[in-house]
Amino acid sequence: MNPIRIAVDAMGGDNGHKVVVRGAIRAAKANPVKIILVGNEKKLANALRKHKYDGDTIEIYNATEEIAMHDSPRTSVESKPDASIVVAARLVGEGKADALVSAGSTGSVVLSAAKNIPRISDVRRTAIATVYPTMNESKRDDYLSLMLDVGANVQCSAEELAQFAIMGSAYVSYVRGIPDPKVALLNIGEESSKGGEKMQEAYKMLKRIPSINFVGNIEGKDILRGMVDIIITEGFVGNIVIKTLEGAAKTVGRLGQLAFKTKITWKLGLILLRKGVAFIKEVTDYSEYGGAPLLGFEKMVIIAHGRSNAKAISNAIKLAGKCVRDDVCGQISRNIRSFEREPEREYDRLTSERYPSVD
Amino acid sequence: MNPIRIAVDAMGGDNGHKVVVRGAIRAAKANPVKIILVGNEKKLANALRKHKYDGDTIEIYNATEEIAMHDSPRTSVESKPDASIVVAARLVGEGKADALVSAGSTGSVVLSAAKNIPRISDVRRTAIATVYPTMNESKRDDYLSLMLDVGANVQCSAEELAQFAIMGSAYVSYVRGIPDPKVALLNIGEESSKGGEKMQEAYKMLKRIPSINFVGNIEGKDILRGMVDIIITEGFVGNIVIKTLEGAAKTVGRLGQLAFKTKITWKLGLILLRKGVAFIKEVTDYSEYGGAPLLGFEKMVIIAHGRSNAKAISNAIKLAGKCVRDDVCGQISRNIRSFEREPEREYDRLTSERYPSVD
Repeated sequence: MNPIRIAVDAMGGDNGHKVVVRGAIRAAKANPVKIILVGNEKKLANALRKHKYDGDTIEIYNATEEIAMHDSPRTSVESKPDASIVVAARLVGEGKADALVSAGSTGSVVLSAAKNIPRISDVRRTAIATVYPTMNESKRDDYLSLMLDVGANVQCSAEELAQFAIMGSAYVSYVRGIPDPKVALLNIGEESSKGGEKMQEAYKMLKRIPSINFVGNIEGKDILRGMVDIIITEGFVGNIVIKTLEGAAKTVGRLGQLAFKTKITWKLGLILLRKGVAFIKEVTDYSEYGGAPLLGFEKMVIIAHGRSNAKAISNAIKLAGKCVRDDVCGQISRNIRSFEREPEREYDRLTSERYPSVD
Repeated sequence: MNPIRIAVDAMGGDNGHKVVVRGAIRAAKANPVKIILVGNEKKLANALRKHKYDGDTIEIYNATEEIAMHDSPRTSVESKPDASIVVAARLVGEGKADALVSAGSTGSVVLSAAKNIPRISDVRRTAIATVYPTMNESKRDDYLSLMLDVGANVQCSAEELAQFAIMGSAYVSYVRGIPDPKVALLNIGEESSKGGEKMQEAYKMLKRIPSINFVGNIEGKDILRGMVDIIITEGFVGNIVIKTLEGAAKTVGRLGQLAFKTKITWKLGLILLRKGVAFIKEVTDYSEYGGAPLLGFEKMVIIAHGRSNAKAISNAIKLAGKCVRDDVCGQISRNIRSFEREPEREYDRLTSERYPSVD
């Protein structure tokens, strides 16, 4: 059996190619994958030379250009056809690799993927999913939850939201091993009537998809409680919510620093409570979960955090390998297809508000 | 000079009329206002009898019905014309009181106001504003910021967002005494090109309103940093963000409780750090700032938190009195009018993207 091949954008991320190389070596040692490091041949060879590793597990694929974190994604992806992220995505699109990992800017990863990797047929929009830690109040198997979309789309239709639920469910049940994961729609109230027309329509649509376990609307205050496995939302809202949590985590940390400077009793308190604060901080720490999957392409794309260290890169590669092994993209494709081809059920139609008299 | 008259919904809120009565007495003692307690005459008289107060400062206005927190606002406001919140709003609409305070359900307050108090002419939509504590990193005069809309509207147009900025600016500059308060638009990136068409349009519109100090887009991660005085957003997003912060505050608190049960060192840490945690908790604590102003009506409406204690009710009444004295509604009206009548400036038109060649 050929090993799973992961194309890794070696020049993406805040910490430079040496960190990516270290992450790749770590991943190659622990996982049955072959890694294709895409980037400046000479720099990568120099960095690899400093480590011991099995030469069969890592190869270099030259790419002469780079896209920096602050570059305009659109301009760069179009004007730099030999940028590491673009070349890595092309390798995946051409079938020379099975999955893509990059710690580059989200925009450049999304656009490079969109330019080179086909969308799954019947998927209307791809979505960025992000995993975050919760209080797990419902005592699920997992203390993490998944939120999507967190930024690939600004707005979307009710049907697109429903598709996000199918994609997220396939991902969580296969990758995190949770059978029948609970899905909720982020809204301004729990009642199905809340949030305006689009949310009402999405609610109804989600209710009637047999392949997902839709439990209803969820409010902002319950996001961290961990009552559900998957939260569905438009990219505009998801992006702002995830960044708000990131900001809240930082605020807690900063309060600690302030305390540090002032009272000696606070200093003691801070040291003791650090573990609790660390829990909150994990909201922004991708290093443990390996990055955000970009769902809806025929091949798996993992966006690692820009600040990824070697461990985070290694976990992102491991996650990509697992997605390929579990055929997450194939599963998404099958579930989306059966949703799109499922005829509207007469009972649902008759009991919907278009025929209120039947109620 | 006649004193400012505040109609107070005495039956609204989770804690019953006795708490509202105590809050009213406290407010009447400390502020030059006359309070009209609206609700069950007998119950209110009984509650008042237990306290010492100046009889000229508080009167009772009978209302035989009540709307509970869990009642459907729409159904209740229509079917209970003698509910305390509806009657209180009517007194304000008829000019028998100058402002309204209620700790009832947000929906019932908004609908009662909308039914009885005219909207300011030229204001397209009213908005709920909420004040929250920040880290005040920009060293402003105030460590609080204002966010609107947080739930009166699900979606709104670019122009409505621009109007929210005008209303929020008038409120903050008069009530909180901050000259030229900084306004930001909540978005998924700082660049003016972010967030889709509506956000781009709102950005441009906000840029050209002379009466406000628009500083650009703000991301979720910066909400708690306190870089700006006012954050503008659609009700759907604002509601979810505020509730997410509420949930994050509770999570921090709950982590403390967990610690309490487990390790003795954590217990000590928690006690010492409680002040830090309390700061975060204030996100949801309306008692200090008196409640959320509902902006856009000809008379001031203050929505006190459902869980308001006597101090919170007193502060809400004090805030309402201050808004009347400062003529916040008149100020909003004048600023909105000049915005609506301001002709598009030729320079703005020529330098806008419709004439890119001029750039």
